[in-house]
Amino acid sequence: MNGFEFQCATKMIFGREKELCVGEELKKQGASRVLLVYGGTSIKKSGLYDKVVKALDEAGLSFDELPGVVPNPRVSLVRKGIGLCREKEVDFLLAVGGGSVIDTCKAISFGVFYEGDVWDLISGKVKPGDKRIPVADILTLPAAGSEESDSCVISDETIPMKTGFGSPLMRPVFSIMNPELTYTLPPYQTACGCMDIMAHAMERYFSPTEHVEMTDRVAEGILATVIHNLPIALENPRDYAARAEIMLCGTWAQNDMTGCGRQQDWFNHGLEHQISGFYDIAHGAGLAISFPAWMEYLCTKQECVPKLAQIAVRVWNAPMNFENPAETAKEGIKRLRGLIREAGLPLTLGEAGVGTERFEEIADAMTDKGSHTCGAFYPMSREDILSLLQNMA
Amino acid sequence: MNGFEFQCATKMIFGREKELCVGEELKKQGASRVLLVYGGTSIKKSGLYDKVVKALDEAGLSFDELPGVVPNPRVSLVRKGIGLCREKEVDFLLAVGGGSVIDTCKAISFGVFYEGDVWDLISGKVKPGDKRIPVADILTLPAAGSEESDSCVISDETIPMKTGFGSPLMRPVFSIMNPELTYTLPPYQTACGCMDIMAHAMERYFSPTEHVEMTDRVAEGILATVIHNLPIALENPRDYAARAEIMLCGTWAQNDMTGCGRQQDWFNHGLEHQISGFYDIAHGAGLAISFPAWMEYLCTKQECVPKLAQIAVRVWNAPMNFENPAETAKEGIKRLRGLIREAGLPLTLGEAGVGTERFEEIADAMTDKGSHTCGAFYPMSREDILSLLQNMA
Repeated sequence: MNGFEFQCATKMIFGREKELCVGEELKKQGASRVLLVYGGTSIKKSGLYDKVVKALDEAGLSFDELPGVVPNPRVSLVRKGIGLCREKEVDFLLAVGGGSVIDTCKAISFGVFYEGDVWDLISGKVKPGDKRIPVADILTLPAAGSEESDSCVISDETIPMKTGFGSPLMRPVFSIMNPELTYTLPPYQTACGCMDIMAHAMERYFSPTEHVEMTDRVAEGILATVIHNLPIALENPRDYAARAEIMLCGTWAQNDMTGCGRQQDWFNHGLEHQISGFYDIAHGAGLAISFPAWMEYLCTKQECVPKLAQIAVRVWNAPMNFENPAETAKEGIKRLRGLIREAGLPLTLGEAGVGTERFEEIADAMTDKGSHTCGAFYPMSREDILSLLQNMA
Repeated sequence: MNGFEFQCATKMIFGREKELCVGEELKKQGASRVLLVYGGTSIKKSGLYDKVVKALDEAGLSFDELPGVVPNPRVSLVRKGIGLCREKEVDFLLAVGGGSVIDTCKAISFGVFYEGDVWDLISGKVKPGDKRIPVADILTLPAAGSEESDSCVISDETIPMKTGFGSPLMRPVFSIMNPELTYTLPPYQTACGCMDIMAHAMERYFSPTEHVEMTDRVAEGILATVIHNLPIALENPRDYAARAEIMLCGTWAQNDMTGCGRQQDWFNHGLEHQISGFYDIAHGAGLAISFPAWMEYLCTKQECVPKLAQIAVRVWNAPMNFENPAETAKEGIKRLRGLIREAGLPLTLGEAGVGTERFEEIADAMTDKGSHTCGAFYPMSREDILSLLQNMA
């Protein structure tokens, strides 16, 4: 176990109808002038918007609105939000939505106090300072884990480029999590969200750091819980218990608790960002294609087999083959693919409408034309990435 | 899963030599006048005291000292600390030690701002206010979990009575956790600490609340990790990895993460407090006697069997007996007793020098003479408690 620092001060307010307390909680946290940030019309259709507005009114909070956040949230809207915050002297940002909405707020939050263009912060050219407008959220989509994470991902739609930045001050002050708000998520979005959650656990789980038992156990617990509850939520979208377990897993998978004391990998997120830069593919669907393919690719690497067998046994209940642990690992991957298929997600790039024509470009981008490798669990070279992409085709 | 709020803002600073940064970290957190609280001579013998003093000096922090904390920490020393804080205008409390030292600081921390006697707060007569002197710690004993918990337990040695209070503001601001500092713990103390950690996980695990999968998994992970690493630490007290896993488990078992969304039990802690009120028995040793006996007692209660079998299978790797799950549960308990025995802890009250003469008194105290039951997983009546005590004798 490596040395580490861990602090996650976000207050989790979890349960039925908890969104009704948003006004009181904001007031308790010192808010007076709020910017309400959201996506499209879904929160208006569901009635959530009206509830939030009523709660803000009843708490005597004045607010302005910034609608229009889209998946792969855009820096243009972040800039607009920064302008609004300055103009209206906003002192609290309230995100109502999923990771894209929360990430938009996070970027605005620091951008307000930066004199230059916010893309400098997002792209890493300039480090974020220690001033920010506090962010809170009402979560409607368990997936990105942004409700407790210390980072955000924003796209510049004009380049195009998708990248992110972080700060220990970036974690939301509080997150309201009512599983009922996820009842109306379509099956495909539910499945993509769960795949993202599982990926967040696995990006940390697959680590070259030894002696990380406790954090391995938590990651395995997250995976086992999602694996059990995703089919239940798909079968009955209004199953409170299943929706609640998935929501809790989404937060704990990404608040970095399971990353404590270890090197993390993040190869698959990197690959997915590249692919979705070129093709219109949902983040969770991209991960559903790459993760099992990557795990299978690593079954031939002796040093990777023990951990791949461990996840197969502990998470997928595969029988341990002591003479040939790679077989155990493969059985685990088979079962992962079974879940992905059951959940209606793609298993190949072809199924997702992604062709082979950009493979060289992707491998070049990930390795700076072969000048470095990617990932910590196994250092993937340019050639490894090309072979993997062929396997994913 | 029940609705819940969870917030744990403590900054965990974990790893080798991290105690050397205590001065800088205190300064970063705004400290200027520190009260250094500790127990006896062990931190002087180990050299930790000198390191801390040097770190405080180098950070330019002035400090006073309050030594003399004993196990089952006393309200008399808390009162002395409150006086010192007022006299010296202390603005930060630094605990160097285990749960007793941290708990002493927590009680002082709130007592300073209460005009009456601090026992009013400790005994629950008066609720703690929202003002407190911040507390930080350098942990030397993984057991109580006070380094992230929001409560403390203090004894009035004159009554005698041991009780506690809590507040969301009571969690330490930061906790420095260097597993190397636990190398010198004697085997008995190591084992007692691990039993306390396991008990904190199990007091929450055994819950009547349904659909608590994710938190069950974390509790199971804590248990599995302690079970694996305790024998290693006993065999080789300087095994960094084992000491690190135990230390992390101690914190996560008691920061209430695993208590999210569920009713908790706490019968065994209640029973142990009663027993240790009458007899000189280590907290962990008392729990080692009561927990398996209580679990065995509940094997006859149909509603308790599924969870007892679950822990047996998932944590103790017992084979599932689908026709008779109580047999599975008993196999788990047998394995728990095996670990306790291997760790050199007692399994009966007799072994711990506790006689049968106070059983009626204990059962009366726990149930207010039979007027209520104790515990949430199974409501233990006065008669249940008497039968259990006979089984423990």
